[in-house]
Amino acid sequence: MKTIIDNLNWRYATKKFDSSKKVSQENLDTLLEVLRLTPSSYGLQPYKFLVIENKEIREKLKEKSWGQTQVTDASHLIVLCSYLDINDLHIDAHVANTADARGIEPGALKGFGDFMKNTISKLDAEKKQIWNSKQAYIALGQLLHACADLKIDATPMEGFDPAGYDEVLGLRDKNLHAALVCPIGYRSEEDANQHFKKVRKSKEDLIEFI
Amino acid sequence: MKTIIDNLNWRYATKKFDSSKKVSQENLDTLLEVLRLTPSSYGLQPYKFLVIENKEIREKLKEKSWGQTQVTDASHLIVLCSYLDINDLHIDAHVANTADARGIEPGALKGFGDFMKNTISKLDAEKKQIWNSKQAYIALGQLLHACADLKIDATPMEGFDPAGYDEVLGLRDKNLHAALVCPIGYRSEEDANQHFKKVRKSKEDLIEFI
Repeated sequence: MKTIIDNLNWRYATKKFDSSKKVSQENLDTLLEVLRLTPSSYGLQPYKFLVIENKEIREKLKEKSWGQTQVTDASHLIVLCSYLDINDLHIDAHVANTADARGIEPGALKGFGDFMKNTISKLDAEKKQIWNSKQAYIALGQLLHACADLKIDATPMEGFDPAGYDEVLGLRDKNLHAALVCPIGYRSEEDANQHFKKVRKSKEDLIEFI
Repeated sequence: MKTIIDNLNWRYATKKFDSSKKVSQENLDTLLEVLRLTPSSYGLQPYKFLVIENKEIREKLKEKSWGQTQVTDASHLIVLCSYLDINDLHIDAHVANTADARGIEPGALKGFGDFMKNTISKLDAEKKQIWNSKQAYIALGQLLHACADLKIDATPMEGFDPAGYDEVLGLRDKNLHAALVCPIGYRSEEDANQHFKKVRKSKEDLIEFI
């Protein structure tokens, strides 16, 4: 489908948003549902998505983002937070949720739960955190794709101070860590970046058939 | 748009593919272009995508995937490989590519190049590898979204032996590492998993407005 490619060519990492334009509630609901439906390893969804509406907090987060104006000027600011730890309690909750959704006895899923527990118990704290944060990157990929479908601009950001975000948002006490930031909204007419040609490696450089 | 959500609800991690059904060249081209257009940190695209067509190699990779039949039965097998190292040479190539695409002098981008070099030189070998591999997860998110748009089934996989893949495909000598595997094709009518209800956390558990 040519539309997918057109949409992905239309998108770019927006540098300057038009702060007067807001993403509709309907579109925001769609994007949040896309995040909710994103697949993750074992279906554990080791993350939480924060939508920051509070202006004062967004000002504080801008300070932790090297002053990038997208953080305050975009319609909505989404912070993709991944879990620091993941443990047996999270797995038990996932097993219970699975049993509930599918109308089966949790006991019937004991093997699935034990398998996950066995895998995860082998990871040290740092490896767990890395694994959890990787899952948030899948969600970012899906979010950006959906934004392009809906012609909503977005700025995927790794360029911020994660520890600063964790502090402003009180994340660590909640077993969370700011993995990625994504302001969404509508590009300003003044944003010169929208006119820059997209830079990507050639197919030959990037893809190999074996 | 309801279609996006319908598509994402339609998709599931396919357990059994119908090996007689092939993804068309047109659709494969679209999916590979989606991978090519995926955004990455600084636009560095520290990855390579392998499409494995060779049947013998796919048999060997199945052995490194705990025997999962998707690896051999799917229409196409995509291996998302991330760079092991990323260094000044990669950044110079990216700067040259940017200058070429936008018709400007490479010298005008020296500041951009130096900024990236400075950032990346602070990362040790392990951190570079993790950072590179995270970028491949964004690509996976975009790929799965595009597959759902095109009603192509897919199985996002972390459950394989990365070192085994690296060995079979001779990746390490090419500065590459198997980060993710994604067979694509069409579900078998016999795959019971397609009838299982999707399990996701509730909005309340997953999303917070601040």
